[in-house]
Amino acid sequence: MADWNTEGTENNTRKNAEKTMKDINVALIGYKFMGKAHSYAYSTVGKIFSDCPTPRMKVICGRDRAGAEAMASRFGWESVETSWERVLERKDVDAVDISTPGHLHKTIAVAAAKAGKHVLCEKPLGNTGDEAKEMLEAAIRAKIVHGVVFNYRRVPAIMLAKRMIEDGRLGKIYHFRARYLQDWIVDPQFPRVWRLDKSQAGSGTLGDLGAHIVDLCRYLVGEVNEVTALLETFIKERPLPAADQGAWGSTTGGGMAPVTVDDCALFLGKLDGGAVGSFEVTRFALGRKNHNTLEINGSKGSLVFDLERLNELQYYSQDDAPDARGFRTIFATEGGQHAYVDNWWPPGHMIGWEHTQTHTIYEFLKAVAKGEPPEPNFHDGYRNNMILDAVEKSAASGKWERTG
Amino acid sequence: MADWNTEGTENNTRKNAEKTMKDINVALIGYKFMGKAHSYAYSTVGKIFSDCPTPRMKVICGRDRAGAEAMASRFGWESVETSWERVLERKDVDAVDISTPGHLHKTIAVAAAKAGKHVLCEKPLGNTGDEAKEMLEAAIRAKIVHGVVFNYRRVPAIMLAKRMIEDGRLGKIYHFRARYLQDWIVDPQFPRVWRLDKSQAGSGTLGDLGAHIVDLCRYLVGEVNEVTALLETFIKERPLPAADQGAWGSTTGGGMAPVTVDDCALFLGKLDGGAVGSFEVTRFALGRKNHNTLEINGSKGSLVFDLERLNELQYYSQDDAPDARGFRTIFATEGGQHAYVDNWWPPGHMIGWEHTQTHTIYEFLKAVAKGEPPEPNFHDGYRNNMILDAVEKSAASGKWERTG
Amino acid sequence: MADWNTEGTENNTRKNAEKTMKDINVALIGYKFMGKAHSYAYSTVGKIFSDCPTPRMKVICGRDRAGAEAMASRFGWESVETSWERVLERKDVDAVDISTPGHLHKTIAVAAAKAGKHVLCEKPLGNTGDEAKEMLEAAIRAKIVHGVVFNYRRVPAIMLAKRMIEDGRLGKIYHFRARYLQDWIVDPQFPRVWRLDKSQAGSGTLGDLGAHIVDLCRYLVGEVNEVTALLETFIKERPLPAADQGAWGSTTGGGMAPVTVDDCALFLGKLDGGAVGSFEVTRFALGRKNHNTLEINGSKGSLVFDLERLNELQYYSQDDAPDARGFRTIFATEGGQHAYVDNWWPPGHMIGWEHTQTHTIYEFLKAVAKGEPPEPNFHDGYRNNMILDAVEKSAASGKWERTG
Amino acid sequence: MADWNTEGTENNTRKNAEKTMKDINVALIGYKFMGKAHSYAYSTVGKIFSDCPTPRMKVICGRDRAGAEAMASRFGWESVETSWERVLERKDVDAVDISTPGHLHKTIAVAAAKAGKHVLCEKPLGNTGDEAKEMLEAAIRAKIVHGVVFNYRRVPAIMLAKRMIEDGRLGKIYHFRARYLQDWIVDPQFPRVWRLDKSQAGSGTLGDLGAHIVDLCRYLVGEVNEVTALLETFIKERPLPAADQGAWGSTTGGGMAPVTVDDCALFLGKLDGGAVGSFEVTRFALGRKNHNTLEINGSKGSLVFDLERLNELQYYSQDDAPDARGFRTIFATEGGQHAYVDNWWPPGHMIGWEHTQTHTIYEFLKAVAKGEPPEPNFHDGYRNNMILDAVEKSAASGKWERTG
Repeated sequence: MADWNTEGTENNTRKNAEKTMKDINVALIGYKFMGKAHSYAYSTVGKIFSDCPTPRMKVICGRDRAGAEAMASRFGWESVETSWERVLERKDVDAVDISTPGHLHKTIAVAAAKAGKHVLCEKPLGNTGDEAKEMLEAAIRAKIVHGVVFNYRRVPAIMLAKRMIEDGRLGKIYHFRARYLQDWIVDPQFPRVWRLDKSQAGSGTLGDLGAHIVDLCRYLVGEVNEVTALLETFIKERPLPAADQGAWGSTTGGGMAPVTVDDCALFLGKLDGGAVGSFEVTRFALGRKNHNTLEINGSKGSLVFDLERLNELQYYSQDDAPDARGFRTIFATEGGQHAYVDNWWPPGHMIGWEHTQTHTIYEFLKAVAKGEPPEPNFHDGYRNNMILDAVEKSAASGKWERTG
Repeated sequence: MADWNTEGTENNTRKNAEKTMKDINVALIGYKFMGKAHSYAYSTVGKIFSDCPTPRMKVICGRDRAGAEAMASRFGWESVETSWERVLERKDVDAVDISTPGHLHKTIAVAAAKAGKHVLCEKPLGNTGDEAKEMLEAAIRAKIVHGVVFNYRRVPAIMLAKRMIEDGRLGKIYHFRARYLQDWIVDPQFPRVWRLDKSQAGSGTLGDLGAHIVDLCRYLVGEVNEVTALLETFIKERPLPAADQGAWGSTTGGGMAPVTVDDCALFLGKLDGGAVGSFEVTRFALGRKNHNTLEINGSKGSLVFDLERLNELQYYSQDDAPDARGFRTIFATEGGQHAYVDNWWPPGHMIGWEHTQTHTIYEFLKAVAKGEPPEPNFHDGYRNNMILDAVEKSAASGKWERTG
Repeated sequence: MADWNTEGTENNTRKNAEKTMKDINVALIGYKFMGKAHSYAYSTVGKIFSDCPTPRMKVICGRDRAGAEAMASRFGWESVETSWERVLERKDVDAVDISTPGHLHKTIAVAAAKAGKHVLCEKPLGNTGDEAKEMLEAAIRAKIVHGVVFNYRRVPAIMLAKRMIEDGRLGKIYHFRARYLQDWIVDPQFPRVWRLDKSQAGSGTLGDLGAHIVDLCRYLVGEVNEVTALLETFIKERPLPAADQGAWGSTTGGGMAPVTVDDCALFLGKLDGGAVGSFEVTRFALGRKNHNTLEINGSKGSLVFDLERLNELQYYSQDDAPDARGFRTIFATEGGQHAYVDNWWPPGHMIGWEHTQTHTIYEFLKAVAKGEPPEPNFHDGYRNNMILDAVEKSAASGKWERTG
Repeated sequence: MADWNTEGTENNTRKNAEKTMKDINVALIGYKFMGKAHSYAYSTVGKIFSDCPTPRMKVICGRDRAGAEAMASRFGWESVETSWERVLERKDVDAVDISTPGHLHKTIAVAAAKAGKHVLCEKPLGNTGDEAKEMLEAAIRAKIVHGVVFNYRRVPAIMLAKRMIEDGRLGKIYHFRARYLQDWIVDPQFPRVWRLDKSQAGSGTLGDLGAHIVDLCRYLVGEVNEVTALLETFIKERPLPAADQGAWGSTTGGGMAPVTVDDCALFLGKLDGGAVGSFEVTRFALGRKNHNTLEINGSKGSLVFDLERLNELQYYSQDDAPDARGFRTIFATEGGQHAYVDNWWPPGHMIGWEHTQTHTIYEFLKAVAKGEPPEPNFHDGYRNNMILDAVEKSAASGKWERTG
């Protein structure tokens, strides 16, 4: 016997879903953390969302054949390639998901667009604004559907925040305040993995974490027009990783190497509509595992979100009775009220982090079916990169810098 | 580019997994909430856990063929039956998952055992202790592998609690204190669905929610030997559900019917080892969606858990420095430290409710491969039913009652 | 320069306060923890509340003259007595505050009433219902003003809860659920102080902590009519306290003595109006220092309170927008909205535990000025004792017992 | 009967306190919010702290005689003056407490020093660094004891944080992150009170709230050497306050006036030892009443504090067992462990905001007795003002500015 009693509307919805929707053939480039997360999402999305084209998992691509094959057999990818160029040549691929390290995004995405493949690309879109611009232009030119994986837009609690702001329930926005804190490199003996090398990773926390909170700002409040910034690298050199661990290893080999990216990034921004923003990202906040948190203050109310409790949104409303105002903790798990939830579980039955990916891919597949870019897309990725560029420029110049 | 940098041990584990493990052919009886949750889990478990036999999803069974077929096409069940007897006759079924309403558990489970099928059964095992006893005896006689879905044992945070208690980190246990609160029938106009009818449901909150917290008590602290109890039905009659909605509908038809089960159950218990327990379950706690929370106090520390934040465990240790003691919030999401997590995501990337089911099915499949019952099994289900029986008996007698 | 900008109404109120109010001459019997807390409150109340008669701190009484004198010089008591009988003979005493151990309450209160003194008595009123009844009858006969220190009624957040319930904002009440957890005797080497000896203390956690949560239930929800209960003493004997430490010492002397009171008390209750209650108190919950917490669930909303965050009240309202419901944390610190707060500090400037005493004494002094008993008074104390008696009786009989 | 059982060491301490300590004659200039808070503290401190010289409350000074007299009669000031110059002439005044608006601090403090009075001054010390420097020099020249009311250093939880950092329990500090958020002027119709006029108030949120978090940074982590900043005024003009309300009124009169101070201030800082800091203060964060919160991340642990829960400190320790790490909530209410607490109540009995003032005044009085400046003193006030100046300069220049 089960715990709950509501259901039913879902199957009706399912019955009405477009039966004639064509399947979409997908290729995934990358097979590490994001490769796994996306594989899981492709294998899940069709089971949960009936109004979604079925993704046919045609091919997964990785340089290390054994690794790619393991992921293929695990998640049901039909074939394996070790060259992304070969993937783009395949006729049986409609859409390419780029989940590689950042320095490969541009080259692959531009080539994919030229090959007429739709593209879903991990964030940040490029390692620089120039790269992102080239990607955007290639996508527009090729008339492909292009999306970027700012997956935290697809948290039901964040989508509720978006609707509340659009409904005017927060009034005029004055403050956006976000930080994304992690702690996985506090130990100075943690090796100098590729993410700590600028030539490969582009930047450190800025592109990895900063890109997310900048996107949430743009999504929820508006454009970031000008920034002042501080970047810092606390540990200037680290042991090289053990050779046989590849780029992802966490044990060390011989010798030291310089850390050439930021360990943290702090910046202030002037936003559309006169609001102000504060932003902070770091990998040196012990105890903060995935602490992507934001607060928005408007003339009628406030919102607070924390990814470590991703099903929850805190809301303060000035419209509440004067003796009973306070931040309330909304569980965004109510069918009929909160995005995507009808397709999941009853109220109070929490969903996990991976479904930020499931929902992102759901939106991308629907967009491919429609032939229109989803939100967020390469336009957003480009603007995002421009803001990150301005942050780096300001950190170097010591002055406010415009974002484009 | 992704957010995180740790991975790798997982694939090595995978490589070492038993390659020769045989697939297990599974049948699922039931296709509503639990049917969906279990279907999702069977389709997920092999992708996440490499050391798990692959479940082959042979057949799903439901009285309503259209409903069962929808679930089959959605989750990849190979065939559909409308008669559970027919399922048990099939040679291509190794194990049967019983996710029906409670009054069918006994009949199906006993027949399945006789047919030599392994059985995983939803909770409570029977609608009475006598039913559960019959099921247990049949399972033992048939030498099948038998499990019961007390899925909250398979929350990583709960498994951490278990380990901490076994390690002696809490010392001698004095108190177990649990409640499972929901709010979905507070509205008196909510219809008299089958769950509110004793002839079908056996009991109300007691079997639905009480069974879970009794199981957590038995798992974490020990046996419940004696109880005193109070059951209450706040709304004595309700509108009948609309006929065309079936048993699960939430809209009303004509006429009223009596509510014949408990709306809440409160009980106190004397536990093994001299500890005392307090238990409370209700469907009348507005704002509590799935508030399954417990606190354990021992001579060296305390633990607190809440299913609405299922990745978290609170822990107070008397061994901390005297000026720095306090309840700490552990995210049970650290690979290498917390159960199952190596197979999921990096620290701070939360998993959702549905994986309490994934983990339960993972343990069941491994147990089938080994030929030994997993924990919890029908022994636990039987003891659980005996305790629920004693609660009902005490509520009627006004006295303390022993649990067997 | 200060942090805040609102004030002003207060002084106007002050100007309008009754100028002709007579001072009240107060005697305090007891000089330990409660003696100190009450002394502080008497010396504070007039400074904060302008519409309150001034308490003239005439005399403090304690068996140990040195201890009483120390407290007198510290808080400004004008004189010291070592015999409470002598206090009652004094003509310059209008009101007597009884802050002794419980077994002296009845004798002193009855004598004080006979002497025509108004009485404020610590809780529980008597050590038994019979004692409390005798006190109540003596007070009525003598037409004195009588109050009992259930000080948690005077937390602004609790008074807000009371108003919300009276306003109907919670609708019909279904559940009251409270616990008061502490941890100061978990160590088996903690000495057998007088509080652990029934002949002196009457009971253990039941009278000390249980009396408080029973009072909150009666105040907020209604009468407790019938109970079933469990009392337990985990540590059956303890070292005697060191002789030179007096009754309050925490170091041990030679020899062991039996613990003759309850270490914890758990009980369930049937309440007025069909609601049900669960109650639990213990001194064996490590990490819980003063965890007096309650939850109330009604047909329209829920409330949660925890004394460890005494300025806060959590409230869930079914009237909130369906997509934005959740427990909100109200800081009961808004002038003009929350009880007593106008006299304290701006919003968000928290008050401390001691002002539960200040407010209780404020209400008592106003009541003495009016010549009418405040709430709560000896009637409440008597009903409270009757419920505690029924709890003990049920724990002994193993059956439900009526409370009078 | 009372709730608790520990006490006793306190009175022994009291007995040993210096019996020969001389009383200190105090004058208070200012009688509004801070005047009231300080009056309360002076009347409390001697009752709670036995090792503190007794403050004799000689005179309170305010321009409005009626207001000052009301405060005098309420808190027991022996006399009233309406001219601060007259106060400084009095022979019976040892120490002057300056609780006026900021633009009067310098003039009064310099004159007081010249008159040989010890000075305790509200924050910020001056309205500019130049003013503060003049005050500091005058104090040094006159060899008086000088203190500044950065009262949040005197929260027991903050003092615990300080000790933990000094003990090395956080390791090397990387991040300081603080914000102080309030919401009392979100309504555009809230009047243009003096605090919103630069000529009187010096600055807006920066001096009022920013001064506090800068002080906490300097106290806990270290000096702020360089800043980049953003100041914003969201509401450019407001209604004038009603004339008869004086500077503190909250109702409006006729006409509008420009707001000439900042509504919010955001800044980033480079700190001693290579740490980085982020700072944000605003009066436009709805729901945040007194949200003075900070987080510190070091190489061994992290701390979090929030003034709205001022008895609590959150602590994460990398030294905890790897499977049981998490932020723990310490109640800084343990006698023998946490500053000042022995003099207050048992564990879990929270103290209120006002005692940040009581403790500050306690430290000041002890310092006067010793003849040495307490911490923090005018040196701290001066450095604080220099940092605030640099923030304003950076906001104007658009560049990083050094703090002196």
